[in-house]
Amino acid sequence: MSVSDEFGFISSIQPQALFHGDKVVGIGDDAAIVGMDEGFESVVCVDTMVEGVHFNPDTMKPYDIGYKALAANISDIAAMGGIPLYYLVSISIPKAWPEEELLDIYKGMKALGDQYRMDLIGGDTTSGKSLVLSVFVIGKVEKGKRLLRSNATPGDLVFVSGTLGDSAAGLDVLLQGHSGWDELKRKHQNPAPQVELGRILTAFDRVALNDVSDGIASELMEIAEASHVDIVINKDTLPLSTSMVQYKEEKALKWALAGGEDFELVGTISAKDWSLLQKRCQDADIQITQIGEVTAIGKGQVFLKDEGQSVLMKKEGYNHFLKE
Amino acid sequence: MSVSDEFGFISSIQPQALFHGDKVVGIGDDAAIVGMDEGFESVVCVDTMVEGVHFNPDTMKPYDIGYKALAANISDIAAMGGIPLYYLVSISIPKAWPEEELLDIYKGMKALGDQYRMDLIGGDTTSGKSLVLSVFVIGKVEKGKRLLRSNATPGDLVFVSGTLGDSAAGLDVLLQGHSGWDELKRKHQNPAPQVELGRILTAFDRVALNDVSDGIASELMEIAEASHVDIVINKDTLPLSTSMVQYKEEKALKWALAGGEDFELVGTISAKDWSLLQKRCQDADIQITQIGEVTAIGKGQVFLKDEGQSVLMKKEGYNHFLKE
Repeated sequence: MSVSDEFGFISSIQPQALFHGDKVVGIGDDAAIVGMDEGFESVVCVDTMVEGVHFNPDTMKPYDIGYKALAANISDIAAMGGIPLYYLVSISIPKAWPEEELLDIYKGMKALGDQYRMDLIGGDTTSGKSLVLSVFVIGKVEKGKRLLRSNATPGDLVFVSGTLGDSAAGLDVLLQGHSGWDELKRKHQNPAPQVELGRILTAFDRVALNDVSDGIASELMEIAEASHVDIVINKDTLPLSTSMVQYKEEKALKWALAGGEDFELVGTISAKDWSLLQKRCQDADIQITQIGEVTAIGKGQVFLKDEGQSVLMKKEGYNHFLKE
Repeated sequence: MSVSDEFGFISSIQPQALFHGDKVVGIGDDAAIVGMDEGFESVVCVDTMVEGVHFNPDTMKPYDIGYKALAANISDIAAMGGIPLYYLVSISIPKAWPEEELLDIYKGMKALGDQYRMDLIGGDTTSGKSLVLSVFVIGKVEKGKRLLRSNATPGDLVFVSGTLGDSAAGLDVLLQGHSGWDELKRKHQNPAPQVELGRILTAFDRVALNDVSDGIASELMEIAEASHVDIVINKDTLPLSTSMVQYKEEKALKWALAGGEDFELVGTISAKDWSLLQKRCQDADIQITQIGEVTAIGKGQVFLKDEGQSVLMKKEGYNHFLKE
């Protein structure tokens, strides 16, 4: 991209107006300036999507690539109990990409960002061999209210929002070229981060939380390790969407445990708070399911219980349980 | 990189201790938490370096790639008058890269980051076709003290720190395979951002400032456009290092104006404040040179004056002045 094109491109993606114009100086200088509300801390994260690694042109249009990259970051903010506010975008893109498709990436981000009143405040655009999109998000959370992975303790209940494995199933549908199954496709291409649930959870005393980016097996292991506890989840309670009935149980279970990119929230909460959390979720029309419990002070192990048998889950493909 | 390698890698780059451990929760959760000092705002920026675009293995070792990527970001913070505090690193890297070279990239960042007491607080590591390194930096600046490009006004003096064109000359020396000229090579591979000068400048009433990433011609045009003024700089006052005598005047001038990546600071200051700024810089052992002045309310034009003649500078290669 020539210098003159680059300047034209920047002005075409620059927001006409900012949601938080009273607190921020955005695109147009060496760096952006962000003022933080009193009583709050910043929550910051970065997530990168690489062509050929995280997506390919057959399953993800440019709009979807932008949408999902921002969704993955908002999901990380949600997992801390935070409110997303700002994003910066670093994109490396082959010169052969048409400018329209490049703009579609930003449109996908804007579509989701606008839902959360987020401002695009900076970035960097470079050429490169394949598309690499890094999104950096800044949010806020009340001081001391952040939801860390290390908060779990024996006796806590384990919960997850929504349904599991839909993103992996959606990818399968897309790769097979099936028509229909739009809800599964949407969950793969335009996943919805669970900011509202994260906010509900900040009202409770002690919650350990992760977002489901790598699959709940891996996410629960991170919570178990950070909290020095063991966790047991029950196979029969894992929430699956009705669309999953088309698949054999073994495949559905594999995706539910290890498919990843569902961007639901998985966590632990004190048993005494469970009924109140259920009520708050019901009021907000958020699906939440108890799937297990924190059993003991431990080495960070996670077990899957199926018809009375408990199987230790592994990080590498869960091959002790799942026959490929 | 397999999952287990990735976890091992993350723990190997995770800082043993944080400089700002009382204000930050770093690597190890979905997102980092950053508390900001009262009376300060956050300064945030991102800069990306792409293999084959911004560097190649002949001229930049992995250590240098990391060092320079962080330096470019710190330089943006310096250009706002800010203090760099934290960085997040998103890296996309071919699987064939040896882990040692990957670690060297982080060593280069750490070497510079430690100088500024900066903490690595997050990031993302993915595989990809070629090396793409995105660094996000968070700094702080006193509320209302940020140094914007739009602050210039007629009568102001134009100044620049250090010497100009050294990075481009260093690249030339490296590409030619010359031995010696270590200072020029260092300025290309391990440039020093000018944080201290940025901090000195925040004490003055009204300063417009940019860092020299694209060459001073382009940087001054950005100041002139943002401030709606015209600027004249004098060819004979452009500060060149003694190492530049090996080159023809025309080449040295081209690099000084448009070479870029010098990461010096260029800006404007009220004429009445110039002698005090000179004194402060002398005390801090910082070289600073007056190279021109803001002449009039205008359309954002920058002129180069040489033996009485003024030539309008252009964004695209400055071809009206420089014969290729």
